[in-house]
Amino acid sequence: MIYHDNIVALATPSGAGAIAIIRISGADAIAIGASVFRSVRNKDLTRQKTHTLHLGHIADGEKVLDEVLVSIFRGPNSYTGENTIEISCHGSTYIQQQIIQLLLRNGCRMANAGEFTLRAFLNGKLDLSQAEAVADLINSDNEASHQVAMQQMRGGFSNEIAQLRQELLNFASLIELELDFSEEDVEFADRSQFRELLEKIERVLKRLIDSFAVGNVIKTGIPVAIVGEPNVGKSTLLNALLNEERAIVSDIAGTTRDTIEDELVIDGMAFRFIDTAGIRETKDVVESIGIKKTFEKMAAAQVVLFLINGEELIHNNDLGNAQQEIGKIRNQFPLKPLVIVANKSDKLTDKQKSQLIDAIPDLMLISAKQNTGVEELKRQLISFVNTGALRNNETIVTNTRHYDSLIKALEEIQNVRFGLQTGLSADLMAIDIREALYHFGLITGEVTNDELLGNIFANFCIGK
Amino acid sequence: MIYHDNIVALATPSGAGAIAIIRISGADAIAIGASVFRSVRNKDLTRQKTHTLHLGHIADGEKVLDEVLVSIFRGPNSYTGENTIEISCHGSTYIQQQIIQLLLRNGCRMANAGEFTLRAFLNGKLDLSQAEAVADLINSDNEASHQVAMQQMRGGFSNEIAQLRQELLNFASLIELELDFSEEDVEFADRSQFRELLEKIERVLKRLIDSFAVGNVIKTGIPVAIVGEPNVGKSTLLNALLNEERAIVSDIAGTTRDTIEDELVIDGMAFRFIDTAGIRETKDVVESIGIKKTFEKMAAAQVVLFLINGEELIHNNDLGNAQQEIGKIRNQFPLKPLVIVANKSDKLTDKQKSQLIDAIPDLMLISAKQNTGVEELKRQLISFVNTGALRNNETIVTNTRHYDSLIKALEEIQNVRFGLQTGLSADLMAIDIREALYHFGLITGEVTNDELLGNIFANFCIGK
Repeated sequence: MIYHDNIVALATPSGAGAIAIIRISGADAIAIGASVFRSVRNKDLTRQKTHTLHLGHIADGEKVLDEVLVSIFRGPNSYTGENTIEISCHGSTYIQQQIIQLLLRNGCRMANAGEFTLRAFLNGKLDLSQAEAVADLINSDNEASHQVAMQQMRGGFSNEIAQLRQELLNFASLIELELDFSEEDVEFADRSQFRELLEKIERVLKRLIDSFAVGNVIKTGIPVAIVGEPNVGKSTLLNALLNEERAIVSDIAGTTRDTIEDELVIDGMAFRFIDTAGIRETKDVVESIGIKKTFEKMAAAQVVLFLINGEELIHNNDLGNAQQEIGKIRNQFPLKPLVIVANKSDKLTDKQKSQLIDAIPDLMLISAKQNTGVEELKRQLISFVNTGALRNNETIVTNTRHYDSLIKALEEIQNVRFGLQTGLSADLMAIDIREALYHFGLITGEVTNDELLGNIFANFCIGK
Repeated sequence: MIYHDNIVALATPSGAGAIAIIRISGADAIAIGASVFRSVRNKDLTRQKTHTLHLGHIADGEKVLDEVLVSIFRGPNSYTGENTIEISCHGSTYIQQQIIQLLLRNGCRMANAGEFTLRAFLNGKLDLSQAEAVADLINSDNEASHQVAMQQMRGGFSNEIAQLRQELLNFASLIELELDFSEEDVEFADRSQFRELLEKIERVLKRLIDSFAVGNVIKTGIPVAIVGEPNVGKSTLLNALLNEERAIVSDIAGTTRDTIEDELVIDGMAFRFIDTAGIRETKDVVESIGIKKTFEKMAAAQVVLFLINGEELIHNNDLGNAQQEIGKIRNQFPLKPLVIVANKSDKLTDKQKSQLIDAIPDLMLISAKQNTGVEELKRQLISFVNTGALRNNETIVTNTRHYDSLIKALEEIQNVRFGLQTGLSADLMAIDIREALYHFGLITGEVTNDELLGNIFANFCIGK
């Protein structure tokens, strides 16, 4: 990787719009910008202050490509920490291409995915977990994932790790110092204070590791398996749930709701609905496979939503069968939250409703048509999710890489603590401490390597 | 229409990207921005200079929505001429929505399509034809249409009209003055100078009106009807032509080439290929309809491209038939450029090639496989297009609304000239002059009304 050349990329979403932004970063960014820019007031871009905006034209020789606004950021006061300019041009794809090609001919190269943020990291503007949060932030599509990414980007998570790492580092240096004086048998590091620190680190690590289950769910959505006969009303149920959500976003242009059937945000938490095959006993081989998969999906889900057709059950006198199926699910997954829902409550008499509720405890009756019971169902779904941590602004780990490092750091810390208990020699203990420090450093980026960075930033979009 | 409230919209293309820009315009734009912005350096946005950039957070009460850069433009030094701020935020659709919703709750309303540019026009930052060019510029997808839109946006077109209008206005005022002194029979307006002006205006108008044919073609692409048997190799031909174009744009992310089959840019000119049914004589009724349509499409096209399968013609000894078909096209459209192309020239012996060329004059032999003859075909296509005006930076009219006004203005100017020749009284002539001035004014926006503006700006995207 070369970090000193000048990179260029489109920073706004691709496609046509009112405005597009082309970003250049590197030592010569401002000079390159100046070479293709003609200020309307004859200003020399290279002599302008940081954080100023300049109107003019981008020209390729005699040919004017566009009227633009250029923003100047002088390093280190820029996103990347390097000299940076942003060209705000008219958002036609043709103009975007022409300007980028002109810049490529004038000393820039195309930026790799995430390279602006990589440079921000390498120049010390962000630590590694903050840099990773930038990608999460861009991908966040609901309140919960946005909040977690935002918190991580602002350093909530890595500050905690960095502080623990610093404290551990202090003890490590004292213990390494003891090694130099090993013949004198001195103890610079207070062992009881050290034990306290290790216990504190262990508590924090365990909390962070535990938060990953929540974090993962927040990032990918809470999986809800929908179980029930085909045509029992899955779409009706989803539409009823989605009904009120649509209105909120309708005044914003371009809000894509293509995947609406599968994902639903309630109170800022994303729920991911997983369709399953029916769960009736069968002798048909193919259907058996389907049922095996259904059980797998139910096992993977956080919540199981069992849909029944109350009207039909009453009509066919089939309540016993439904009870049996529900019993089977409860036996299979005794700890999994189960919501049983019957739609079309408007078509049932009060007597029939009582009959259903008596037969199936905790049954939720809804009527999509009359919009009754829908709000209660939402409350029921959200109540299953442990969002306590989220609501209390606690640090939540969402990144698998961080999770792995935390697990490994915890192992090493436990080794150190065990060594301390068993009177392990300082030189052996120092090895475990260094290992723990290494894993902490991997999270914040104090320890790093090209392969690791390559993997992380390959997941970014170009232009970030 | 109310022009004094504060409008907000997403200015960048919808979807996720590294950066998105949300734009606010209106008297209170900076104050509204300041009310949701927390500067990292505790700066008060309302006290910052125009054309400066400020780092900070957008917060909804205690809840931080994003880290952003805010650009400040103080009216009249802004695009709209009003106070304007641009919030450069992380490009997640969730963040875009949240910030826009926050601004809507804090004194903004959603901008209508083109409302920023409409305000720019109403505040005198652009004349109407320049404002219209903004939309053309954003939609331009090739060099020619980009160049025309750019020229129009920079005022090339309306400057010429405005100048003629001014000269005409001077004479009009002299003639109207004569009316005040009508009993004295004086002539303030020099009739021979006036005749010269009218002739000059007529020349310019005719040139502009004539340029519309070229302009329209530039804007929408040059229609080329492809005629030939089914499976004669239309796709092969198009792929051969497109081959070299692909490479140019491949290093730009997100360049959509979905419509590649139908449009092709050669030397900055867009060609629009129109597929047609075969043109053989037939007794089948449905096919006859198809052939009727084929002739209609050929009539509408600027160039007809006739594809033959040279190999098959030689093999089946079918050359006479091909000659007959070509003759039919030439008879039907004697003035229309016709290109006859045979692919797979690599499969023909030199003798067979000569045989084909002797039978069909001006035949172009290409081999898509070996990439021979493709460049010549491109040169042939481009040679049919009158791009002289374009290359010479002459003003070109592309807008139907302008075209209509120019036609009407020309009619009135001719009426005035006829009146002058026939010694029409000054009061009657003044009416015709006023009519001509009215049509000129419609182009530049000096004469306007709400309905006209509504129609123009409805074609813009929201955020522009």
